[in-house]
Amino acid sequence: MTPGRPVPPPLAHPVQPAEVTNGATARNAAARGAVSPVSGLVPLTVARRAPAPDDVDIAIDYCGLCHSDVHAARGEWGGQSYPLVPGHEIVGRVSRVGSAVTDLSPGDRVGVGCIVDSCRECEGCLDGLEQYCEKGMTGTYGAKDRRHGDSITQGGYASSIVVDRRYVLRVPEALDPAAAAPLLCAGITTFSPLRHFGVEEGDVVGVVGLGGLGHMAVKLAKAMGATVVVFTTSESKVDAARELGADKVVLSRDADAMAAANRTIDVIIDTVAAPHDLNALLRTLRVDGALFQLGLPSEDMPPVDPRALIRRRVAYAGSLIGGIAETQEMLEFCAGHGVAADIEVVAADQLDEAYDRMVAGDIKYRFVLDTSTLQAAAKEADA
Amino acid sequence: MTPGRPVPPPLAHPVQPAEVTNGATARNAAARGAVSPVSGLVPLTVARRAPAPDDVDIAIDYCGLCHSDVHAARGEWGGQSYPLVPGHEIVGRVSRVGSAVTDLSPGDRVGVGCIVDSCRECEGCLDGLEQYCEKGMTGTYGAKDRRHGDSITQGGYASSIVVDRRYVLRVPEALDPAAAAPLLCAGITTFSPLRHFGVEEGDVVGVVGLGGLGHMAVKLAKAMGATVVVFTTSESKVDAARELGADKVVLSRDADAMAAANRTIDVIIDTVAAPHDLNALLRTLRVDGALFQLGLPSEDMPPVDPRALIRRRVAYAGSLIGGIAETQEMLEFCAGHGVAADIEVVAADQLDEAYDRMVAGDIKYRFVLDTSTLQAAAKEADA
Repeated sequence: MTPGRPVPPPLAHPVQPAEVTNGATARNAAARGAVSPVSGLVPLTVARRAPAPDDVDIAIDYCGLCHSDVHAARGEWGGQSYPLVPGHEIVGRVSRVGSAVTDLSPGDRVGVGCIVDSCRECEGCLDGLEQYCEKGMTGTYGAKDRRHGDSITQGGYASSIVVDRRYVLRVPEALDPAAAAPLLCAGITTFSPLRHFGVEEGDVVGVVGLGGLGHMAVKLAKAMGATVVVFTTSESKVDAARELGADKVVLSRDADAMAAANRTIDVIIDTVAAPHDLNALLRTLRVDGALFQLGLPSEDMPPVDPRALIRRRVAYAGSLIGGIAETQEMLEFCAGHGVAADIEVVAADQLDEAYDRMVAGDIKYRFVLDTSTLQAAAKEADA
Repeated sequence: MTPGRPVPPPLAHPVQPAEVTNGATARNAAARGAVSPVSGLVPLTVARRAPAPDDVDIAIDYCGLCHSDVHAARGEWGGQSYPLVPGHEIVGRVSRVGSAVTDLSPGDRVGVGCIVDSCRECEGCLDGLEQYCEKGMTGTYGAKDRRHGDSITQGGYASSIVVDRRYVLRVPEALDPAAAAPLLCAGITTFSPLRHFGVEEGDVVGVVGLGGLGHMAVKLAKAMGATVVVFTTSESKVDAARELGADKVVLSRDADAMAAANRTIDVIIDTVAAPHDLNALLRTLRVDGALFQLGLPSEDMPPVDPRALIRRRVAYAGSLIGGIAETQEMLEFCAGHGVAADIEVVAADQLDEAYDRMVAGDIKYRFVLDTSTLQAAAKEADA
């Protein structure tokens, strides 16, 4: 691993069993630039630190494929070091624990989401809002690990990971481990604004976009007792939305249908990561309604019409994943309500194809990497 | 009065003492178009209805001049009928009451703000949020008065007005009546979002723009015990902001000063009604902060960067005046804390000049019309 080095090193695979895992990395020649075609994910060996007293060593079983992974691997967000092992929807079992970890044991089913560290001292961290840490949370991959010599974190497309106990979640055994993996990002990212808004039985929740996040938003809002309205640009998604549990589907390009939805929604979870007009959506909100935008378009959003906000005291808000305690709460909520992601499990040698299909929107609704396939992919590359 | 008729009728002044007042109207030839130079405010006689059982007849002493009046009088917002008597910051004394009004008596100091009616049945009305009435509140001027034959309401640049008791405020005698007038719009419009956000001692409130609304926001936030930071583009306003009680003034065009204000503000009251960039302001907010935009620019606002919202769960919100009960609460709060507007009293024949000075920003901070001058102006016009 070469922190901060933009060009990937040669593909050497030194065998250091205790601290090394075979992962997949984006070998991305254009990582030096801002816009890039991807040259493909290739096997790579990365070192993991030996567990410190507070650490948990996790044998990873599954890792969800998040759209952020594609952006990071393909250099679309800039500022990334390579090689890079993406992945922050991690589910596995504890393989060993540091001496100070008393509440987890080898064999326990655990997960890791988007956060592996934070300052632990600021108001956000003390309030369980580690995602808004004043010093910046440490992301599960591609982030400077301040507590470990500024090395660059490497994510969950790997056979193991070592993470401080504070950022490790218990995954209830009632959940299917593969289908639970996307809960660690797509799940908590939609659960958190729903909870923050205080969604309860009888509320009307709008969901914009029906991808990895959107499909979780529908399931979670339904499990909270809300009536769910899916806004989609595509007639082809109407049946899919209903299958997920949506009570109503509104074609957002149909001005009449949008006007008919005027003042009917309490809160909108907007998962679309491309620029899109918000004004017609904002007008569907009731007094004191809110639209939470979760996706981050790479280009400017169209202007928001302040009238849409002023006339009903509506809020256009953002929300970023969720805190650790809230993620634990979400996992238990999902176990209690039988909620998990709709997934398609892929092997390591299918990652590039999966990325392409994600970009094309050709997945219902989340790919999950079976990490047991990494060894085979590495051997093949070595041969 | 000719509802819906775009061209003003001849300036007849029939004398019908019980139901007629001399007001000022915008005789605006270009009212038929969208953009217009103003041709000036002229004396006009308008009829007031005879008080129904629930009505209060008010002898108006003062009426504040709101920037909305300029937009409406000059036809800048479109859809306006003329002749039009502007004015929705009304303070006077009860002259007589309808038979069902038991809690007000002739001589009582009262006020009327922006709302003279609403449906009284929707969730908003029942919650004391008449400003967000589902059927639309009835504005104090230029609005269709559904309960009175769709006649067009005429405002407070007049010697009297008849308003349903439900929309009449008690103005505490402790308040100077002229300086209290602007509380009915500028005051409540800034008080409401501060209260809605829950501002309390120790909070940090940002105020953008230092006009009629902005100066009230500073005074009210200080009276609530907040630390107040004024954001201004103009170095010339630094002293004025401090005189009003601002603890800190940040020049919003100074990128370093804005960066230094990063994550320091709990809530921003943005009173600027021209298009302006919000992203640097949004970045000064702390986690769960909010920016309330109160002004309505006639052109698009620049795009909002969703990152500024997502990274701290920040809300970009709107807010419209305030409900009737809340307006009453605000008046009592102001009386209790010695808060009122900084005003310059003008006579009827100074209205055009005052409008021009408002457009030029040449007023600290609110003009108030002394309605006793209307008779003189009318007589002069008749001569």
